[in-house]
Amino acid sequence: MSKKQRDALDAAIRAYPFDPTVSVEEARAGFEEGQTLPLSSEARPVTIGGISGLELYPDATEGTLLYIHGGGYVVGSARTGASLADGLAGRAGLRAVSIDYRLAPEAPYPAAVEDGLAAYRGLLDAGVEPERLVLAGDSAGGGLTMATLLAARSAGLPQPAAAVLFSPWTDLTLSGATIETKVDADPLFDRAALEWFAGRYLGSADPADPLISPAFADLAGLPPLLIQVGSHEVLLDDSVRLAARAAEADVEVILEVGAELPHVFQNQAGSLDEADAALDRASRFLTERLAGALAR
Amino acid sequence: MSKKQRDALDAAIRAYPFDPTVSVEEARAGFEEGQTLPLSSEARPVTIGGISGLELYPDATEGTLLYIHGGGYVVGSARTGASLADGLAGRAGLRAVSIDYRLAPEAPYPAAVEDGLAAYRGLLDAGVEPERLVLAGDSAGGGLTMATLLAARSAGLPQPAAAVLFSPWTDLTLSGATIETKVDADPLFDRAALEWFAGRYLGSADPADPLISPAFADLAGLPPLLIQVGSHEVLLDDSVRLAARAAEADVEVILEVGAELPHVFQNQAGSLDEADAALDRASRFLTERLAGALAR
Repeated sequence: MSKKQRDALDAAIRAYPFDPTVSVEEARAGFEEGQTLPLSSEARPVTIGGISGLELYPDATEGTLLYIHGGGYVVGSARTGASLADGLAGRAGLRAVSIDYRLAPEAPYPAAVEDGLAAYRGLLDAGVEPERLVLAGDSAGGGLTMATLLAARSAGLPQPAAAVLFSPWTDLTLSGATIETKVDADPLFDRAALEWFAGRYLGSADPADPLISPAFADLAGLPPLLIQVGSHEVLLDDSVRLAARAAEADVEVILEVGAELPHVFQNQAGSLDEADAALDRASRFLTERLAGALAR
Repeated sequence: MSKKQRDALDAAIRAYPFDPTVSVEEARAGFEEGQTLPLSSEARPVTIGGISGLELYPDATEGTLLYIHGGGYVVGSARTGASLADGLAGRAGLRAVSIDYRLAPEAPYPAAVEDGLAAYRGLLDAGVEPERLVLAGDSAGGGLTMATLLAARSAGLPQPAAAVLFSPWTDLTLSGATIETKVDADPLFDRAALEWFAGRYLGSADPADPLISPAFADLAGLPPLLIQVGSHEVLLDDSVRLAARAAEADVEVILEVGAELPHVFQNQAGSLDEADAALDRASRFLTERLAGALAR
């Protein structure tokens, strides 16, 4: 459908490979510059459960989306996450809150999980019904979305209606086979890049901790999950294994693998057909699961 | 959404567990009786590429569906497969052909693959454009659908626009972990049941042959795949690993795991909400991929 678009995207990413000698400050500035994409909606600062963020579509009536941005737990912000939040919420008629959780290395694990849970609890405390609430996140934010669901389960909080995960990073032990088999196909990441991020987030924590690597978690009781990933990703196995874990625990799960697409390709909506189609499917998934949760 | 429906289905299946002391004739008669479901359309005998079958919706204009029935390569017929063919074709506006490939033990491997390929080639020879052609199959018919695609690739034939696989059996070495982990949850099958079917189909063939166990095949060049499976299946891993293999080979793939659903739950359309929803999604997938193939 869009071989030309895919090739152009691959070349554009390869022109700026991740450089593991970069400083944290440089990495943050570069990510912020590259990922602050235009929004279709006004983004207003909010604080939810003590966590600051940006709110989009405050008057939307179909439900609330809590969005958790990517950036390897080290870079990114509520603003960089706002574009994918906008893409989902705008299509599905949702209000969205994109949060600024604390980043490593200043705040290593478990700070991000604490902040994800605080925001989730804050939305419930503010009167959002769980049947009207969905979560989404990309890359490390996808892993953190899963950790937030697990932390909510441990805290005895109700689960939301559904969650969407774009190219989630679910294994910080870096044991996925595709870290080797897809390294030539992936225009963005290799093991050294993943280690750069993981090292800063982990501190002295065990990378196999299920709240760090939800690919190893017991996912029983979690809501329906939609996982989207590209086949040109070293993190492909992180999605495949998360889907397998969900199925094992009788959690409804849809895994969509886009052929020859890179990490979080949904960011290319507007210039890559598969990105728009993926956001269309993801928003339809959220709409259907919100309707299903209300009907129960 | 339909816990009561799911529980009733589980109990109904458990009331008639597969009995591995049954004769082939008894197994065929029982399957034919249980799986000859009402059709929404007239089924007319046809012969395609020398393979007999049943044709549904002969005047449909959106494309052609080649349907390959399940039954462990030992039982089932074009008629038992016709109900799922009808469910897909009726929704998507397709003509359907459900085929009677040769069964084991009278005709062990590779007879079924030869017949699948003959029917596929017959449709192309009859003027069906590959961009207008899709395949689908359930259980062993899902595995045979994959084998047909692989055999077509080897024969230098073009690939169809897409394929849908309901609970495909893709590993006759029976190495999937869920054969043990899901045995209590699965109301239908256990290892002994799978061995009953595999033993009759394999003859002296190697069960790891990719045309017998496509979970071990190189899937490069295959069309977009949709795999639907229940989480209450010993064959769950057959679907998960097939999806992983497809992704590895840059094949677009969607894996949908329905929570607490049994083998080929789509047969329960009309009495199980998830069955109708799954057929709706599968027919939408076929429609979208047919449009995508024509646009290329």
